[in-house]
Amino acid sequence: MQITASDLRQLSHDILAAHGFSPEHQHSITDTLVTAQIDECHSHGVWRLLGIIDTLKHGKIDATASPVITQEQGAIISIDAKLGAATTALALGLPKLIDKAKHSGIALLAINHCVHFSALWVEVEQLTRAGLIAINMTPSHAWVAPSGSREPLLGTNPIGFGFPRRNPDEPYVFDFATSATARGEIQLHDRNGTPLPEGVAIDANGQPTTDPKAAMAGAMLTFGGHKGSAIATMVELLAGIAIGDMTSQESMAFAEGTPTLPYGGEIIIAIDPAMLLGADTDSLYTRGDAYLNQFNAAGARLPSQRRFKARQHNTTQGFIELDDSLYQDLQALLQAGL
Amino acid sequence: MQITASDLRQLSHDILAAHGFSPEHQHSITDTLVTAQIDECHSHGVWRLLGIIDTLKHGKIDATASPVITQEQGAIISIDAKLGAATTALALGLPKLIDKAKHSGIALLAINHCVHFSALWVEVEQLTRAGLIAINMTPSHAWVAPSGSREPLLGTNPIGFGFPRRNPDEPYVFDFATSATARGEIQLHDRNGTPLPEGVAIDANGQPTTDPKAAMAGAMLTFGGHKGSAIATMVELLAGIAIGDMTSQESMAFAEGTPTLPYGGEIIIAIDPAMLLGADTDSLYTRGDAYLNQFNAAGARLPSQRRFKARQHNTTQGFIELDDSLYQDLQALLQAGL
Repeated sequence: MQITASDLRQLSHDILAAHGFSPEHQHSITDTLVTAQIDECHSHGVWRLLGIIDTLKHGKIDATASPVITQEQGAIISIDAKLGAATTALALGLPKLIDKAKHSGIALLAINHCVHFSALWVEVEQLTRAGLIAINMTPSHAWVAPSGSREPLLGTNPIGFGFPRRNPDEPYVFDFATSATARGEIQLHDRNGTPLPEGVAIDANGQPTTDPKAAMAGAMLTFGGHKGSAIATMVELLAGIAIGDMTSQESMAFAEGTPTLPYGGEIIIAIDPAMLLGADTDSLYTRGDAYLNQFNAAGARLPSQRRFKARQHNTTQGFIELDDSLYQDLQALLQAGL
Repeated sequence: MQITASDLRQLSHDILAAHGFSPEHQHSITDTLVTAQIDECHSHGVWRLLGIIDTLKHGKIDATASPVITQEQGAIISIDAKLGAATTALALGLPKLIDKAKHSGIALLAINHCVHFSALWVEVEQLTRAGLIAINMTPSHAWVAPSGSREPLLGTNPIGFGFPRRNPDEPYVFDFATSATARGEIQLHDRNGTPLPEGVAIDANGQPTTDPKAAMAGAMLTFGGHKGSAIATMVELLAGIAIGDMTSQESMAFAEGTPTLPYGGEIIIAIDPAMLLGADTDSLYTRGDAYLNQFNAAGARLPSQRRFKARQHNTTQGFIELDDSLYQDLQALLQAGL
């Protein structure tokens, strides 16, 4: 079916309101999910409403939590989401992060105690629009074994990065899991009865497997062998231990066996290139664009290009294609809350 | 042969002095190379003196350059190495970076116009000893093709990361090239007439190759497919474009076909966990150590452990094993400069 972004926003607001989410949660969650839907980033689109409501039913998200600034010192801001959505804490924190980065040249925003279900590129792109470079990361649930072991000590631990370009709608942005594949991919292969690609999972004995059921009983692997494993560990240390928040193991324990969304922290580092480059600030765009344009010329795909194309297409045509069954699920979710 | 660290330091000082390096260069270069040698990190040990002197002969390093602070604003410090060694600029900048990070919670040091030949973990460990978390990176020479292309638009672009642990001699530290293998590995296979591992290089037509000569005529690949490629690109953008310094392509052009060391920038970000954790600062060690000890228990090798073992061994025994032929090369290098 086809739906306008504004109708989809209304539906998302209505669903969240019907289930008791506060206006600030309705707004921040809807904004983030519909932004992803417009970009055809389906895994982080309005489909997530199902998981959010399920998490609410299990008591693992607070629908009316108001985030609180717990620290604002030097170039650091810490926000306690108080078991609310990361998106609501980000709505409070990002403008402050931008101010601090422009004042100090670099700044760090730590979000604590948030339920996380959103794509990292959403806040990264808000920062590149403000002319900043951004890096962010968050742990998840412990499904991934570090290189050389079969113990799931790591989450899928995504990392995002954004670098402004002259066209503010097409920054250099990546956002990917540090696991070799997404958790959802394994579940999808299980549902479809298809084998996994090689090299993404091990079984409970630590042996490589392409069987999705064996993989779910065992562990996923990181991308890039021991190097990817080291980067995934960095995410646990920086966005977990260093900000006094949960590791992916602890988030999994907090879920108490329920299929709820990850709970814990996120960090976002923002850098102001204007302070680094001074009078040469425009070289960020002239040199950056010239450098990155060579990637396109050489046939190397820059990350996020498919998303930018989808965004442009959907914005121009004025509606989004939505899976019929997803729309029905969302309507049922709305009815269930009324 | 066996040599004490202090004799090896003296030899390195003498070689650098004989070739006209300033006292501050003698000191910083020797410190860094001997630190690596003690850790049996041979690729970044005193062997590098050969490349440094070669670079000097080609006029691509200034042996008497004094680094200058060009900016110190907010949480940012920029230092112009003026075609001197990165190590000399770091000796000037690291104490300032530590001060700024402790003052603001996060700070960034940009080194510009430096000749780079040292391991990134050296400065990372200086920062973890000061109780800070650190991330650093530097472009190199453009030998590596981004995922999906055969054009060498990327350097081997190493990334370092350090996180303090209770035992200050064994922080969590990684430092690796974002290429699938080191440039030196390919040269070694060429010298030995052995094939490369699969998946590390392509030939001039963009086809996978295990022939070292074909790889040198073609390009190296990044680790971790498109994800590793995106991270390697981030290094060019952050430690090249964003600080007004060379990309790996530009560094290669600057070398003008000579086999000289990479020239350009490095960035180091330092974060003070004490400001993030406040009264809970000790949790960095209690929780961090408990988390990381699980890796050892599960059979996953933590990065840098081999180095730490070598350091302890060599420090206890009071001497370092040095290859006879390397020692002779170093003696010849000394004589050539006198």
